[in-house]
Amino acid sequence: MKDTKRIAVLGGGSWATAIIKMLSENLETIGWYMRSVYAIEHIKRNKHNPSYLSSAELHPEQLDLSDDMNVIVDNYDILIFAIPSAFLKTELDKLTTSLENKVIFSAIKGIVPESGLIVGEHFHEKHAIPFENIGVITGPCHAEEVAMERLSYLTLACQDQEKAKDLSNFIAGRYIKIKISDDIIGTEYAAMLKNIYAIAAGIAHGLGYGDNFQSVLMSNAIREMKRFIKKVHKMKRNINNSAYLGDLLVTGYSVFSRNRMFGNMIGKGYTVKSAMLEMSMVAEGYYAAKSAYNIKKDNGAKTPIIDAVYNVLYDKKEAKDEFKKLTNRLD
Amino acid sequence: MKDTKRIAVLGGGSWATAIIKMLSENLETIGWYMRSVYAIEHIKRNKHNPSYLSSAELHPEQLDLSDDMNVIVDNYDILIFAIPSAFLKTELDKLTTSLENKVIFSAIKGIVPESGLIVGEHFHEKHAIPFENIGVITGPCHAEEVAMERLSYLTLACQDQEKAKDLSNFIAGRYIKIKISDDIIGTEYAAMLKNIYAIAAGIAHGLGYGDNFQSVLMSNAIREMKRFIKKVHKMKRNINNSAYLGDLLVTGYSVFSRNRMFGNMIGKGYTVKSAMLEMSMVAEGYYAAKSAYNIKKDNGAKTPIIDAVYNVLYDKKEAKDEFKKLTNRLD
Repeated sequence: MKDTKRIAVLGGGSWATAIIKMLSENLETIGWYMRSVYAIEHIKRNKHNPSYLSSAELHPEQLDLSDDMNVIVDNYDILIFAIPSAFLKTELDKLTTSLENKVIFSAIKGIVPESGLIVGEHFHEKHAIPFENIGVITGPCHAEEVAMERLSYLTLACQDQEKAKDLSNFIAGRYIKIKISDDIIGTEYAAMLKNIYAIAAGIAHGLGYGDNFQSVLMSNAIREMKRFIKKVHKMKRNINNSAYLGDLLVTGYSVFSRNRMFGNMIGKGYTVKSAMLEMSMVAEGYYAAKSAYNIKKDNGAKTPIIDAVYNVLYDKKEAKDEFKKLTNRLD
Repeated sequence: MKDTKRIAVLGGGSWATAIIKMLSENLETIGWYMRSVYAIEHIKRNKHNPSYLSSAELHPEQLDLSDDMNVIVDNYDILIFAIPSAFLKTELDKLTTSLENKVIFSAIKGIVPESGLIVGEHFHEKHAIPFENIGVITGPCHAEEVAMERLSYLTLACQDQEKAKDLSNFIAGRYIKIKISDDIIGTEYAAMLKNIYAIAAGIAHGLGYGDNFQSVLMSNAIREMKRFIKKVHKMKRNINNSAYLGDLLVTGYSVFSRNRMFGNMIGKGYTVKSAMLEMSMVAEGYYAAKSAYNIKKDNGAKTPIIDAVYNVLYDKKEAKDEFKKLTNRLD
């Protein structure tokens, strides 16, 4: 047990719950904001999150639970946000207290739809958080495997690497290994782009392409991701590190990925609307595709896969035709 | 139909049969050597290879079949070898005719156990074939998906790229796209190394590691592959191209890969011997691990994954301990 009253998690989903589980191996008290009073009561009584990652055993005596975000923000120094990007702005609108001097780590993958920004940029531009106080927690990591205590490697990125190292002491453990990085922009874009590639993998699968094509698609996707991120933020990075390639693979090859599932339905002939209705949620890659497409229009990166996904999702192009064209742009 | 009497395939397995299928879309006559007289008769009568890739329909009227390797070698200019590396030397010992002026393409993945050389080097050193007459056909490509006519991308590598382009005209088609490369050494080592990484993936799975770890393993494997190949043959290559990364992924993520299956049994506690007996065959990565380990001892490449696989297969180390150590060498 290393410290108290320092770290809080904001969000009540699977990934938030997984991070709580990691932290509770090392901390006596963890702040935890979630919207649902019902979930909070359930956790206190039953030691499990009722709706997400319910297989993970939680320890209520270590948890400072609150349904008031302002209380948690006031009482903790390091705030780990794990709220789906589609709801982040609505949640942050509840803030009446200040985020000044707080260290913000984003465990969110995706674009904030209202601002069109990745989460770090959103906090920087909309909440005036300096970049040295912004960090990213990224995978490759299915929350479900954290619940099962299967060995997972996370990357903590922060411009001020000392802050990433500090947090890593409370997250690393028996089944979690941590790598430190200073590439907050690149790791966040990678986490966002991989969802688009997972949609592409799903579409290809839905259309009947096989494993041979999937491997070519992933091999092209990592090269495309490299070109894209280089245009957005040029720095020395090895795109084959776990935070980039590993994260792409764990999602692109997962049959449980919501993004891949969404793509698969599109490939099988569902319209975008009916696929969303059927899933009763919006896959993060859906927003990411639009945002990435607009960014690449500005910066001129060559992105055949993003183009194809965008054309299918937003330009009413037939998946079959669009992917036929795509096959000629890959190698 | 483009030409006749030019191209022959040597070997009777799945991959040989898949290549025959590709060629028969473009050629009127293809030479085909296979050992088994029974298989030849079966193909002539039933239009299918009885034992391998039997779902692929063959066209006997296009096939110049022979169980005499010397006849085929004499009559054809471009010889595509698709004999498992473990049997290559035994087969080549039957040669009484000359390979002079023949163009040899290797569709074999692995090391020739007797010489410890990759196939291209073996032909060069043991049969005095100049490197400009040696080429490599590599994936990512499961033969089964060729039988199903699912889109696949092959790489043809030859120092003399004109020879690769020439052959590509007869292999490319409706469901086959071809990329040309001049990296015969690198593509062949990649094809060999990926089998070791597939064994590693299998061992990890057998030991109970999950998808998060698998993605980290693959992300480390491609970096290790890059270091290894750079030491063996330094040249400008993008390790994320399909012939390297794609080939790694199609094998490392395939539950049908024999190498992965072999590793999985080891991870589950089978001894090396009993896993081999159970599979009634030797996985190519088994030989590759020994050879790669010896090469890296010479050239000093940092290869934690190859080391771990070698130690388990050849040094009687417990897979569990060895992979525990490996997890600390990955990131």
